[in-house]
Amino acid sequence: MKMIVGGVTAAKGFTAASTAAGIKYESRKDMAMIVSEQEAVCAGTFTSNVVKAAPVKWDMRLVAEETCARAVVANAGIANACTGDEGMEYCQKTAQAVERALGIPANQVLVASTGVIGMQLPMEKLEAGISVMASELSGTADSGQEAARAIMTTDTKSKEAAVTFEVDGKAVTLGGMCKGSGMIHPNMCTMLSFVTTDLAISKELLQEVLREDVKDTYNMISVDGDTSTNDTVLLLANGMAGNSKITEKDDNYRKFVEALNAVNTALAKKMAGDGEGATALFETEVIHADTKEHAKTLAKSVICSSLTKAAIYGHDANWGRILCALGYSGVDFDPEKIELFFESKSGRILIYKDGVAADYSEEEATKILSDEEVTVLVDMKMGEERAAAWGCDLTHEYVTINADYRS
Amino acid sequence: MKMIVGGVTAAKGFTAASTAAGIKYESRKDMAMIVSEQEAVCAGTFTSNVVKAAPVKWDMRLVAEETCARAVVANAGIANACTGDEGMEYCQKTAQAVERALGIPANQVLVASTGVIGMQLPMEKLEAGISVMASELSGTADSGQEAARAIMTTDTKSKEAAVTFEVDGKAVTLGGMCKGSGMIHPNMCTMLSFVTTDLAISKELLQEVLREDVKDTYNMISVDGDTSTNDTVLLLANGMAGNSKITEKDDNYRKFVEALNAVNTALAKKMAGDGEGATALFETEVIHADTKEHAKTLAKSVICSSLTKAAIYGHDANWGRILCALGYSGVDFDPEKIELFFESKSGRILIYKDGVAADYSEEEATKILSDEEVTVLVDMKMGEERAAAWGCDLTHEYVTINADYRS
Repeated sequence: MKMIVGGVTAAKGFTAASTAAGIKYESRKDMAMIVSEQEAVCAGTFTSNVVKAAPVKWDMRLVAEETCARAVVANAGIANACTGDEGMEYCQKTAQAVERALGIPANQVLVASTGVIGMQLPMEKLEAGISVMASELSGTADSGQEAARAIMTTDTKSKEAAVTFEVDGKAVTLGGMCKGSGMIHPNMCTMLSFVTTDLAISKELLQEVLREDVKDTYNMISVDGDTSTNDTVLLLANGMAGNSKITEKDDNYRKFVEALNAVNTALAKKMAGDGEGATALFETEVIHADTKEHAKTLAKSVICSSLTKAAIYGHDANWGRILCALGYSGVDFDPEKIELFFESKSGRILIYKDGVAADYSEEEATKILSDEEVTVLVDMKMGEERAAAWGCDLTHEYVTINADYRS
Repeated sequence: MKMIVGGVTAAKGFTAASTAAGIKYESRKDMAMIVSEQEAVCAGTFTSNVVKAAPVKWDMRLVAEETCARAVVANAGIANACTGDEGMEYCQKTAQAVERALGIPANQVLVASTGVIGMQLPMEKLEAGISVMASELSGTADSGQEAARAIMTTDTKSKEAAVTFEVDGKAVTLGGMCKGSGMIHPNMCTMLSFVTTDLAISKELLQEVLREDVKDTYNMISVDGDTSTNDTVLLLANGMAGNSKITEKDDNYRKFVEALNAVNTALAKKMAGDGEGATALFETEVIHADTKEHAKTLAKSVICSSLTKAAIYGHDANWGRILCALGYSGVDFDPEKIELFFESKSGRILIYKDGVAADYSEEEATKILSDEEVTVLVDMKMGEERAAAWGCDLTHEYVTINADYRS
């Protein structure tokens, strides 16, 4: 498996387009469309919030009931959440506009929205946007990248990842794009992630791989602890790599599991690192936990701690807050036995051991904490399980962004 | 029952003192002591964090094993948490210093600390402080108020509350003080709360009343979602009101339950309103829930939502975030059926109904949200249960305070 440059247009047969439809932003692109030349099997995971946006409900039904999908239409600016029957109608109208423009049946068109909750979409602008995009679809890397940019809200960077691997001697490509910066605490966030592959695989296995993989990737990131109404991950596989279709859990299946994990992990980390107002990607890695579930709970508790996140922003080695967050996670452990380390590209230092502060240099700690990617390593000394979770620092800019997001 | 001005010295037979011991702050008081003339029965509730500060462990043992208590010594600046055996020894030395100064047995001296985790206390300064305070104990309201000021850390206001009520024709007084501003998400924060009463009541009932009441008061507030290693509530009852001792759940017991709830609710709200960097007390009241537990979970989910808290700071009627927080709380409900209102001393408006935004005036909403106490009222339309939770807005100042707390 090899990481490559690219996104949703990396795999064979996938094209993308994007446009400035004027939904909410004045001078930037705010709609994107992905189209597969051939029918693709599709898997999806969606928000666990009981308040589900209209496009989430639309996609959940399509993923469950339809055998394949051909297109995804996404907009930024308005979430189409808490919009009642009118909101549901807009999903259908969006799909119908794609049907008119490209001849793709409406029930093969997935939709996704991100932005403000409670406002209605300007349907005419969306329909006009679809017409424009239908005439500009392209399989180039640029086209994929532009699409990734178009779905951003408070994101500061577009987010793509792609890999190639081999199945049956055939080169298979898997690539994706995502957006997500605030209201990020996916349980299955407003994160949207779209991943495409030319692999041939059965729909059942595609859904199973995705369902399992999100638990270790998107569901292990948090920016603010708020689980969105719109979180959506869609995975489309159109089979155009030409491998013999994967229908059982064989070696080829395992190659795909590994590839999907690489792309999803890369995309998830990009979202965490680009959390609203963030200056650093903050990773917590828990090793030697007694169970996988405990490792995940502990890791997530630390990256979700507001006090720890503010300390990371301040480059302050306030390890007491980390220990505190581990302590209230709900997992039982002996605080006297565990060890804490800070780690970054500048080095690694032991900061806590035997129930008290280790003899570390504050200067060295500050240097490590000043890097753009900071890791807290927690050695539980209880067993063999591990997990990682990803968040970001809590900054003045986060407050500025969210104190008046709607205006 | 009547609310009165006062704190820990309001009840008969309780005196207090405070001093500038120089533990961490330069030019302010940072130690307080409360002493009961007579032996008092004592109840306590403590942090649920598995990482428990030394003074928490000390008090848990005393409350469980001793029949009575006479004194409480508290310091601000250093939490004496994650301090190993040395930290435990300091608790004992503190109690012994009180024994030397006042002749109160060390096992009747409760201790409490709040501040930075992981630093050792300057024991000599503490001992000197105790000597000074022992000679300055006084039952005046001023003395109680000075003590309330001495235990503050990032708090901006001292916090006291007191009530009087009658039992057997005798006037009973119940008063308390607390501190708490950051690392506040009590599950049974560093919140410290000390409540004293001259009521005569059995130790068993005292503990039971306290254990039940914290669930609806301190445990329903949150500033930042971080449950401290030091949270402590202590309730001392010295019997000096002269009522016949309460030993069963009779009418007198119920009067005390009501009085304790009034004092604890008042203290809890003061902590939430004075959350680090806060400009507003943010209350969420859930009515017509199907169960009490659901009402509490829903209310707490809203006051803990970073995005909602930032919107309150911005006086932005971003109700979508409130609905979102209800939706991810874990409680099942139909978003189309519930109603949301904003409320303050400036008025009350309906903002969400039938699955969509109500027809409200943004101007009026902004006015309501600009008050110092803002309430979101959630009508679940499912049953008869209710609950309230209290938090605060999320501000730039919160980040400033916590990005470099240790220096």
